[in-house]
Amino acid sequence: MPQSAHWGDRVIAASQAKGSVVCVGLDPTLEQLPEPMLRSSAGAYGSTAKGAADAIAQFSRAVIDGVAGTAVAVKPQSAFYEVYGAPGVAAFWDTVSYARSKGLLVVGDAKRGDIGSTAEAYARAFFGSATPLASWLDPDQQVDCLTINAYLGSDGVLPFLKDAGRGKGVFVLVKTSNPSSGELQDLQLTTGRSVAEQMALMVDQIGRQYLGQSGYSAVGAVVGATYPQDLARLRAQLPHAIILVPGYGAQGGTAADVVHALDAAGTGALVTASRSIIYAFRQLHGSAATPAQVTEAAGTAAAQMREQIRTALANRI
Amino acid sequence: MPQSAHWGDRVIAASQAKGSVVCVGLDPTLEQLPEPMLRSSAGAYGSTAKGAADAIAQFSRAVIDGVAGTAVAVKPQSAFYEVYGAPGVAAFWDTVSYARSKGLLVVGDAKRGDIGSTAEAYARAFFGSATPLASWLDPDQQVDCLTINAYLGSDGVLPFLKDAGRGKGVFVLVKTSNPSSGELQDLQLTTGRSVAEQMALMVDQIGRQYLGQSGYSAVGAVVGATYPQDLARLRAQLPHAIILVPGYGAQGGTAADVVHALDAAGTGALVTASRSIIYAFRQLHGSAATPAQVTEAAGTAAAQMREQIRTALANRI
Repeated sequence: MPQSAHWGDRVIAASQAKGSVVCVGLDPTLEQLPEPMLRSSAGAYGSTAKGAADAIAQFSRAVIDGVAGTAVAVKPQSAFYEVYGAPGVAAFWDTVSYARSKGLLVVGDAKRGDIGSTAEAYARAFFGSATPLASWLDPDQQVDCLTINAYLGSDGVLPFLKDAGRGKGVFVLVKTSNPSSGELQDLQLTTGRSVAEQMALMVDQIGRQYLGQSGYSAVGAVVGATYPQDLARLRAQLPHAIILVPGYGAQGGTAADVVHALDAAGTGALVTASRSIIYAFRQLHGSAATPAQVTEAAGTAAAQMREQIRTALANRI
Repeated sequence: MPQSAHWGDRVIAASQAKGSVVCVGLDPTLEQLPEPMLRSSAGAYGSTAKGAADAIAQFSRAVIDGVAGTAVAVKPQSAFYEVYGAPGVAAFWDTVSYARSKGLLVVGDAKRGDIGSTAEAYARAFFGSATPLASWLDPDQQVDCLTINAYLGSDGVLPFLKDAGRGKGVFVLVKTSNPSSGELQDLQLTTGRSVAEQMALMVDQIGRQYLGQSGYSAVGAVVGATYPQDLARLRAQLPHAIILVPGYGAQGGTAADVVHALDAAGTGALVTASRSIIYAFRQLHGSAATPAQVTEAAGTAAAQMREQIRTALANRI
């Protein structure tokens, strides 16, 4: 499949090829990494930001090796790499390139959102958008899709869609998975919609202008697995949006919850689990795990998640 | 003034000492930089991301040298540095450290916002929060204050306030300066408030728990200069919040507009201009400007802005 295919089509094709909607969130935090890995990086670079970045890059690669066959996508969370400054950001891009080389789609989870000229800069940073001085950019510095925050309105969304023709997409935050998401998102507007539903309306209206052959758009929506009723309602409200569903596993979302996000064919969503997959090695091997054990445990956990969702889908009423 | 003083108190003290509420936004984009600076960086590192990062770091330092006497703070916009990947992020932190060494407060403009565990990671990334493995962090990697997006609710705000005791603060997006900000922010809730006013209520409620001796909080609000009526109303609604006011200058906000953000003593806000100050050299010297000319032009523009606001304040009814 050429990289220039439409983002929505790429997701659907990969989902069908792998029989999976699994997306693995990469949230590497130093405290949870295997000790041998930390020691090895500290030996090479000291207990420094560079050493930490080396460790999280090695860890990310080990997880990717495990999940590449069963997951459709990985979702590296930028925050966990930014902790270690420039070396951490180098580790982020190493992780992205490695995942893409393994045939995985990459969703950069950065939740960027800003005014037009700044959103353009973020599009350059994450999609490598063509610019007058694009030759100065690192050509490998690009994700396939980016999570964005549209509190600023369409100004903060449209600059990213200039890259839709290059197969890039966005996921707009609609209803997030965290406990306090309702403080703003569940409030009712005088239009009769909740704030989240209003955001969904923006996703739908903009998204209809960026449809692929699959009927899915380059503009998707984030809706947390932890709110299954919202998931069902927003799935219906957003027929053209791929839904990114965080909150599976450690945050409490189950397979029975997330099937609400899937279309009749069992696709149309990327269901994300992070800690329950990337740290699966800990239950089996504790903090002394080898890289091979990290890989194997993550692979097993991702395959189990794929099966859980398949089973729940077969039992869907 | 010790660095551990309260963020609100630090802003008010610096504002009184400099007779200024000026904050200079650092949004360096390669296309606008002086050609000699670009040539010099390309000579050292090639026309690469590293070369571009070197150029924007040199440019940022030249601007800082010009404005350090009249501005209270600088606000580097992360997006413009992230464009150049790891070298760009190194340039961001070089800019931050240089500005702090010149006695400027630094507001990291990154508009981060995420679920609790990820917001904690962002607090580590931008404030250097103490953690079990904090010794791996670069101790110079810290801004004084960060812009954040609270669409996710208080979960995305509170983790940053663990650092309030170390003099750190946040600016929460309330009413942004861009044309489409009203698409969501101006909508009315059934509570009788607009979405922006609801966000302001969160700022006020959380902020009252983090007051300094000046009466100002570690929790401030972003309200754009381009919407002066909102500025006046939200100033009244947020008696304890320092207001970050973007949109002065190139975006259209004037001194008469921004005085609505100031308290009776003429403080309580940071008024931000970016392009009209950092690119002031272009009108005087064109694209062939030297670093010294960048410095002088930025300094003159920042001093003029300080005077414009002082005059408007004196004429305030």
